[in-house]
Amino acid sequence: MEKTLLILLTNDDGINAQGLQTLKKEISPIGELWVVAPDREQSATSHSLTLDYPIQINRVSERSYSVGGTPTDAVMLAVRAIMTRKPDILVSGINHGPNLGDDVSYSGTVAAAMEGTILNIPSIAVSNVNWNAKHFKSAAGFIKKLILFVYRNGLPKDTFLNVNVPDKKETVKKYKITRLGKRLHNRVVIEKIDHFGKNYFWIGEQTSVWEKEDDTDYAAIQKGYVSITPLRLDTTDYTSLEQFSGWKII
Amino acid sequence: MEKTLLILLTNDDGINAQGLQTLKKEISPIGELWVVAPDREQSATSHSLTLDYPIQINRVSERSYSVGGTPTDAVMLAVRAIMTRKPDILVSGINHGPNLGDDVSYSGTVAAAMEGTILNIPSIAVSNVNWNAKHFKSAAGFIKKLILFVYRNGLPKDTFLNVNVPDKKETVKKYKITRLGKRLHNRVVIEKIDHFGKNYFWIGEQTSVWEKEDDTDYAAIQKGYVSITPLRLDTTDYTSLEQFSGWKII
Repeated sequence: MEKTLLILLTNDDGINAQGLQTLKKEISPIGELWVVAPDREQSATSHSLTLDYPIQINRVSERSYSVGGTPTDAVMLAVRAIMTRKPDILVSGINHGPNLGDDVSYSGTVAAAMEGTILNIPSIAVSNVNWNAKHFKSAAGFIKKLILFVYRNGLPKDTFLNVNVPDKKETVKKYKITRLGKRLHNRVVIEKIDHFGKNYFWIGEQTSVWEKEDDTDYAAIQKGYVSITPLRLDTTDYTSLEQFSGWKII
Repeated sequence: MEKTLLILLTNDDGINAQGLQTLKKEISPIGELWVVAPDREQSATSHSLTLDYPIQINRVSERSYSVGGTPTDAVMLAVRAIMTRKPDILVSGINHGPNLGDDVSYSGTVAAAMEGTILNIPSIAVSNVNWNAKHFKSAAGFIKKLILFVYRNGLPKDTFLNVNVPDKKETVKKYKITRLGKRLHNRVVIEKIDHFGKNYFWIGEQTSVWEKEDDTDYAAIQKGYVSITPLRLDTTDYTSLEQFSGWKII
């Protein structure tokens, strides 16, 4: 008898988010699904880990748990305290909104997949690029195939996948393996005055301009493809490492 | 007349931390120093960015500001709202405790240097590897030299430095350019029972075992060297990118 495919599902939009719930429904036929996700939105929490205080876990239903912490906390707790055995695959998402280029470093969705990778679980982060996404079901259809593919073929050690899917009604069948793109303009700070007359500051978005390159995640999405970017845990810059060995600092 | 070296100093332990204050004192002779740092401890916040609510900035003294947000927020606000021109160099630290191997992904100290790099500022994260560090002054002596070296020679675009310094009384003059090491064992979850009889969970540390490799940050520290690891913004796994181009997912 074949071993049951054990899947851990998490996200950074909170356990009740439509992206997660739609994905859960679509992929439940292919394996035994465990959902361990934050109890509220945790966007832009990056790879934050809660060390200073304890975390509550609430059982929502069978194999479904909400966690009073970050996406990274959720993965850690799922694997070390909740699940009966280590999952065969981790999927984080479907995020509401894109995770492209340098922005992946802020993302709680991507960080959960990073944490899975640290724990030696093949891991996939998935985002629908529309902030007000309508078509999670079609994205989930693609992800189901990707999960089975990764389960059969594995991923290299310390490598994980960051997937962005266009918001289309029909399941997108075109995909590209991409590298991270680069935004030329970045966030702005908006200064306002509060009801005490004191200045306060809000970090906001600017209309983005991206480097025009064919092989990036951003370019793939622009052309209507699913973008699959392999990311690595080890962020050492090996090219610089070699160059810097000649440095005379003192 | 030579241009004044403009330095932005931040951290994740909060503006009053001894590591930051000692570094500030030691490097103030070499340039015009601005301190913009979180108003309280923000360890393990990773590259979190505050988007949902506004942030307060308080002027502590001349060119010194505390920020009610994460280290990443502090850098963004310093560059976009506080400083009169873009800094020539950013230094994040001196952190109380190590930032080695995979743990750099959780670190607010390292994330601040990452944010500086996104904003095209040559950036350095610095940690004293002792959680109860005594000798920040000697570390600061080394960092002063490193700042001047980086100012003169620059850093490659999208590359930044993660520096760990042993806790020694005399300024450490031996340094190694290293890659990130790898922990073989990871964090654990401690389960306890609260005064209502309900279980709660705390993410804790395990005695760490590291891969035995000569060229890592961990190995350099073990041998009493300063470790300087070049890190990259672009976390694309280019080796896998090439391999995966043959994938047939559907």
